[in-house]
Amino acid sequence: MIQSIDRAAKVLNLLQGARHLGISDLAAAMELPPSTVHGIVKALQAHKLVAQERIGNRYVLGPALVKLSSVYLDTLDVRARAIRWMHDLSRETGFASRLGVELFGDVLVIHHDGRPDGSEQMPETGASIPSHASAIGKVLLAFNSEHADDVFANPLRELTGYTITDAQELADDFMSVRKNLIAYENEEAVIGESSIAAPVCDSTGDVVAAVAIVIPSNETPVDEATLTRLIETARNISRDLGTPSWPPTPN
Amino acid sequence: MIQSIDRAAKVLNLLQGARHLGISDLAAAMELPPSTVHGIVKALQAHKLVAQERIGNRYVLGPALVKLSSVYLDTLDVRARAIRWMHDLSRETGFASRLGVELFGDVLVIHHDGRPDGSEQMPETGASIPSHASAIGKVLLAFNSEHADDVFANPLRELTGYTITDAQELADDFMSVRKNLIAYENEEAVIGESSIAAPVCDSTGDVVAAVAIVIPSNETPVDEATLTRLIETARNISRDLGTPSWPPTPN
Repeated sequence: MIQSIDRAAKVLNLLQGARHLGISDLAAAMELPPSTVHGIVKALQAHKLVAQERIGNRYVLGPALVKLSSVYLDTLDVRARAIRWMHDLSRETGFASRLGVELFGDVLVIHHDGRPDGSEQMPETGASIPSHASAIGKVLLAFNSEHADDVFANPLRELTGYTITDAQELADDFMSVRKNLIAYENEEAVIGESSIAAPVCDSTGDVVAAVAIVIPSNETPVDEATLTRLIETARNISRDLGTPSWPPTPN
Repeated sequence: MIQSIDRAAKVLNLLQGARHLGISDLAAAMELPPSTVHGIVKALQAHKLVAQERIGNRYVLGPALVKLSSVYLDTLDVRARAIRWMHDLSRETGFASRLGVELFGDVLVIHHDGRPDGSEQMPETGASIPSHASAIGKVLLAFNSEHADDVFANPLRELTGYTITDAQELADDFMSVRKNLIAYENEEAVIGESSIAAPVCDSTGDVVAAVAIVIPSNETPVDEATLTRLIETARNISRDLGTPSWPPTPN
């Protein structure tokens, strides 16, 4: 039973990576007979967790995932509390803001408030960013040594020429992140874009998320008032969540 | 094997409905021994499709769903094409816009562009609305008789005092929807909010989605220019998708 669920999850993961795959592609990747994979895919399809292309025989992820994701996001207290404060932050600073949590070592964006200038912007909720190349990720790593150990156990991928791929160099910065409640990332994930993040705690006092502003590189550095607003935003969200202490302490 | 996947999907569905459930709640709902349900939940949890509450022993949906959903949304041609046109539509009309597709008889919102007035607005992507109470749903029903047969096979739920729950009354309007390429909904899902939708076709010529503007009821009726802009938006998205004909024909 567990094995079937693992296999189903594996199909979802493979479709997440490659997006359009046929039964034979999936069977090869999973080292299983095509008939077995066909059964798994059809079971997932019945629940619309997987869909077949309208034209062609390949499979993609299915629309039921959108509703499940939406319910997940709606149940997250941290996101519900953050939305208002992030909207104010974006309006007052002029920068887009992001809220992120850890997922399998990466940062998962769970809310995004665009730049208030009316420009066309892609929705970022659901995007994932390698932790070591993300200001949000650096906050989460700095406040959770277990998470840092996991991430640093593997080689760090270079995303741009500015990505820091040396674990020690990243870790050297964590004391300052914990002290100043601010982590920086300068074009380390995407050229032309930098970000600054601050920690968000829940009612247990643990850092469970981080909130960031996203800055076009030609607008850096930002002024002191903007940094203060960012930390205030993180504190306001944390207080709404009932954090017993501020600033947070590492765990 | 299929049975295990069906059970796993059932767990996700139950958590979608009630959000926080213990093993015994799930076992009761599924009429299975708690040990069996525990195995399913733990297998889902290993893939972060399900998560355990930080405080307490109940389960909620997991963060991996957000990433899967995001990949699904990114693979959707109709959404990728629609984003730009919807942003222009919202800016020019001053109304929020929504893009929706059918999911299990309901409308699933797959993109949302807020009112351009800078007001705080909840993200709507992932929300679902009963088709019969939605302008998008009426478009999808009017252009797909099989879908209409499915939806009308069950009693229609009253969401507000204005919800039309008589299938015949709804169907009587479909000829006009097909002819004018516009469906209306007046406070039929939410009091204080009305919407107007137009059909979007893909390269097969089938209506696969609909785009809507959302209008505070005190701003209705909208002028003729707004309706024209809405239909143009639907046509532009459809043309970008390579529709062979416009206006669309029912199937």
